[in-house]
Amino acid sequence: MRLNNVEIEDTFAEAFPMYIGRFIITASTRRWALASAQEAKGLGVSATLGPGEAGIEREVTRDEAPDNRPGYILDVGHRQRKELNYWLIARIRKGVLPTPTTSVFDAMPKEMAQYSIEVKDTPIQLFGDGFEEIVERKGRAVYKIPRMDGFFFIEKKLGIARGIAGGNFLILGESQAVSLMAAEVAVDAIKEIPYVFNPCAGGIAASGTKVGGRKYTEAIATTNDAYCASLRDRVKETKIPSGVNCVYEIFVNGLNLSSIEKAMKVGIEAATTVAGVKKITAGNYGGTLGNILIPLKKVLEIN
Amino acid sequence: MRLNNVEIEDTFAEAFPMYIGRFIITASTRRWALASAQEAKGLGVSATLGPGEAGIEREVTRDEAPDNRPGYILDVGHRQRKELNYWLIARIRKGVLPTPTTSVFDAMPKEMAQYSIEVKDTPIQLFGDGFEEIVERKGRAVYKIPRMDGFFFIEKKLGIARGIAGGNFLILGESQAVSLMAAEVAVDAIKEIPYVFNPCAGGIAASGTKVGGRKYTEAIATTNDAYCASLRDRVKETKIPSGVNCVYEIFVNGLNLSSIEKAMKVGIEAATTVAGVKKITAGNYGGTLGNILIPLKKVLEIN
Amino acid sequence: MRLNNVEIEDTFAEAFPMYIGRFIITASTRRWALASAQEAKGLGVSATLGPGEAGIEREVTRDEAPDNRPGYILDVGHRQRKELNYWLIARIRKGVLPTPTTSVFDAMPKEMAQYSIEVKDTPIQLFGDGFEEIVERKGRAVYKIPRMDGFFFIEKKLGIARGIAGGNFLILGESQAVSLMAAEVAVDAIKEIPYVFNPCAGGIAASGTKVGGRKYTEAIATTNDAYCASLRDRVKETKIPSGVNCVYEIFVNGLNLSSIEKAMKVGIEAATTVAGVKKITAGNYGGTLGNILIPLKKVLEIN
Amino acid sequence: MRLNNVEIEDTFAEAFPMYIGRFIITASTRRWALASAQEAKGLGVSATLGPGEAGIEREVTRDEAPDNRPGYILDVGHRQRKELNYWLIARIRKGVLPTPTTSVFDAMPKEMAQYSIEVKDTPIQLFGDGFEEIVERKGRAVYKIPRMDGFFFIEKKLGIARGIAGGNFLILGESQAVSLMAAEVAVDAIKEIPYVFNPCAGGIAASGTKVGGRKYTEAIATTNDAYCASLRDRVKETKIPSGVNCVYEIFVNGLNLSSIEKAMKVGIEAATTVAGVKKITAGNYGGTLGNILIPLKKVLEIN
Repeated sequence: MRLNNVEIEDTFAEAFPMYIGRFIITASTRRWALASAQEAKGLGVSATLGPGEAGIEREVTRDEAPDNRPGYILDVGHRQRKELNYWLIARIRKGVLPTPTTSVFDAMPKEMAQYSIEVKDTPIQLFGDGFEEIVERKGRAVYKIPRMDGFFFIEKKLGIARGIAGGNFLILGESQAVSLMAAEVAVDAIKEIPYVFNPCAGGIAASGTKVGGRKYTEAIATTNDAYCASLRDRVKETKIPSGVNCVYEIFVNGLNLSSIEKAMKVGIEAATTVAGVKKITAGNYGGTLGNILIPLKKVLEIN
Repeated sequence: MRLNNVEIEDTFAEAFPMYIGRFIITASTRRWALASAQEAKGLGVSATLGPGEAGIEREVTRDEAPDNRPGYILDVGHRQRKELNYWLIARIRKGVLPTPTTSVFDAMPKEMAQYSIEVKDTPIQLFGDGFEEIVERKGRAVYKIPRMDGFFFIEKKLGIARGIAGGNFLILGESQAVSLMAAEVAVDAIKEIPYVFNPCAGGIAASGTKVGGRKYTEAIATTNDAYCASLRDRVKETKIPSGVNCVYEIFVNGLNLSSIEKAMKVGIEAATTVAGVKKITAGNYGGTLGNILIPLKKVLEIN
Repeated sequence: MRLNNVEIEDTFAEAFPMYIGRFIITASTRRWALASAQEAKGLGVSATLGPGEAGIEREVTRDEAPDNRPGYILDVGHRQRKELNYWLIARIRKGVLPTPTTSVFDAMPKEMAQYSIEVKDTPIQLFGDGFEEIVERKGRAVYKIPRMDGFFFIEKKLGIARGIAGGNFLILGESQAVSLMAAEVAVDAIKEIPYVFNPCAGGIAASGTKVGGRKYTEAIATTNDAYCASLRDRVKETKIPSGVNCVYEIFVNGLNLSSIEKAMKVGIEAATTVAGVKKITAGNYGGTLGNILIPLKKVLEIN
Repeated sequence: MRLNNVEIEDTFAEAFPMYIGRFIITASTRRWALASAQEAKGLGVSATLGPGEAGIEREVTRDEAPDNRPGYILDVGHRQRKELNYWLIARIRKGVLPTPTTSVFDAMPKEMAQYSIEVKDTPIQLFGDGFEEIVERKGRAVYKIPRMDGFFFIEKKLGIARGIAGGNFLILGESQAVSLMAAEVAVDAIKEIPYVFNPCAGGIAASGTKVGGRKYTEAIATTNDAYCASLRDRVKETKIPSGVNCVYEIFVNGLNLSSIEKAMKVGIEAATTVAGVKKITAGNYGGTLGNILIPLKKVLEIN
């Protein structure tokens, strides 16, 4: 396949189920809502250790927020349900509750919610020390918890979907600058698709991995040597074509497959508009690990 | 005591020892260095759960960085040495290694380093899968690790100081807007003091806590009801004077006591310049918990 | 009138006709589109001298832009038609044409366009030195002008509306912090209303004026002493009620009256949610200057 | 000459005298100081029409500002003394005076000041309408002018230097992405040099010009066709080497020649570190227009 004169490899992204929460962080002003969302999102890049993944999906208008204030949608995900339950609450406890004027509301579409996390009996409810109460906001049951600057409001239940992680594609460019600009262009395009999030800082991953290690066999994940241009001459399995000198990977997580496919499509199309991009491919493990295969061919054919 | 006609309570901040790492994150461009520092800093607000504390201390000039690139100093802390060792590596693994063009160098002043974290045998070195090598940069031993966009450089040893957490003061204002503006003014002032960092999103904490709970006795920390204006009439021990309606807390962690004191001083002075601030005090537990007492009186007398 | 327990004075904003252009600035990446829009917007605050008024209205999605790239809508206005013709071209020539990867497309709704500015024979077309050509983009005639980084595209005609300037309201608060926070909250709310723009830096004006001067009678506009709390005791005509210590003004320009009224409504409503706001009023000259009177009462009654 | 394996053409930048003002904009918070500086800087890109050039030089610490507040240094320049006098005042009148909590102080080093602009009798003083007074701040005479949010302070005299405009270099890269990244890297480096400023949005110029026009002989400046890769086959005088597809120009204005040379040096050095950069040259008119010639060879030899 070719798109804008760029080769698209006939391969697939190998994705995995992921439990995902989706909620709105509001504040008195847009900048405080954003400061809180960034803190709560932090340390949320895909990796084999730590507190799961997170990404700011988009700005919400005041009409969309139950308290009629500016806000952002944060998506928080983990492959383990129990871990998600723990870290979603921790992200709110550390990133939102301490931040001036903030509140939290569920943003999970009803039809996607598979289960709920209850704020009851978590460190967030306990923070209230009995002074908290349940009030109603636009038909929602909401904790009203005293805080030094007034009250922190948080919806009683936060919906969790069984979504997908690991949608991805790789951008192979003739130089670092080209791959980076193409990745940035792709990230801007993906930002406009609802129900997906990108966990990486700035949306771009330099540290693609392979499962396990060749030399360090005890490692869970190590550098994706086949896609390191600097190892082209040292790795027999190199997948770096002639003329390619840098690769970046774009990850797309989301609440459902169709949104991820749409996001991959617009991202790939946007990346191929940048002069110097040589090839687009996707990361997979031959289908041995993830049970959700997303062929690039199918992705590019959707409307 | 009074300063700019604002009452300064004759009390003290109660602080604690904290292990702290301090390193530079560089990148090809300043904006990528900042994106990485923000991700690595994330989820780093003081709380009783999660991955410790972190804060961006300041921008560094290209001359200050061993690779002559733009960068930021990140401070990462934890009260438990073992936990710090784990989370400092995790913050770099998740916040820096994946981010385009980044590298990491130690920024701990020699005279403050108490011990070092070795990158050897961590997931960061293992990421190299044997392709990594040790090179020299301005007299420093540095890992050079292949990554899809080139190489990730990270100094072999990252120095750890026995610093201090919990320097703090409370701003009591006649309205939320007043306390928030005073807090923002204080944060701007504190940013100019070296060797300190502020873990909160935007530098300001709304969710002051007391140790344990009145009602929820099993809780580790609950709302600081004595400083909640909304609970003024329900809490006998309220410390909200007449005319005060909102309180924010500013935390200051740092490598040494004198830097924290300096930061508290400039922060308090700045806060008192904002009209409508009624009182400055500090958070403590009567000296029962922390072993480092920082009297506001002493702080304001330093030059 | 009272709203959220804040007095709304029964008065009116006195507004004026203004010629307004509205166009999209696109670029390869969202951040370059924004950098260009900010430069082109600059020096665009209402005043009695200089290059007219300008404001970034909002972000556009890639679908909205004829070149399918990220962009921002910029509104540019002047009370004199000839001056607008000159400065609109100058803003593009200085703020957009030099900025990497940018292009410009008309964003004036057909039904509002009263006349067009032709790019032909302006310094922008002349820049092409004969190498420029006219091409078609989604049914629009567009100049394609060679530039060192490729081509600058600009739509051949940019529509101009006969809009309105000087929609406004004043926020009277008990402290500077209160008035400033209320103004920021109002600006966030107004940002969501289409077809309006706010020319001030950060959307907030500290320097309200009266027409002419008491002492400096030759001056065109001087400080609005009646609304300076610091002059309360020196100015007989003071309009500063007891308990008020700071005033900020929010200006709203727009393509039509109904959009300005909607923006004023949401801005005033938002401002009154901030504790410490004492009164909302509007700036007028008794109806002697502007021919468009916007009563606050009417504004608050619209849906 | 070669640097980092990039060809440096043995040519010179052709520069011109420019009158330059340099002042500090302070505000209660750093973000308001920045918002004001950006507005006052706007519409300040080099071009043959409009309100001169301007650039934010750097952040100042609170100690550097006479009012002990956060701030930014703004440089404002024009080749005509009378025009500078007009537009410097206009930039402050429109970009600073209206912006919440701001003040202005001279930042011209004594030894560089050639003359002063007096605020007396300008629209800024007249704004005070007789309520203004002269006060003293750290040994400086300062106007204190009532404004709706308190007082606007502005130093009575603002020093003007006879500086230089038009320091520049051109980055020729194999792709748009390469030239753009190299330009961004150069801009980051130049930002660290004192006494210089860069008037372009984001610091990068895509619209290099030649004097006059080939076809449009009446034009003052038209596209620099010799450096347009898209015109390579249509322009006999093309200076686009094989393998080059995009050119960006970096301008450096400054208070004195040595600062400009230093800035050009660090900028060029930084640009050549980006893979894919093919050549660095500089813009000149054969020495026929500007009387200050800055050879690249000399620039690269300084320490």
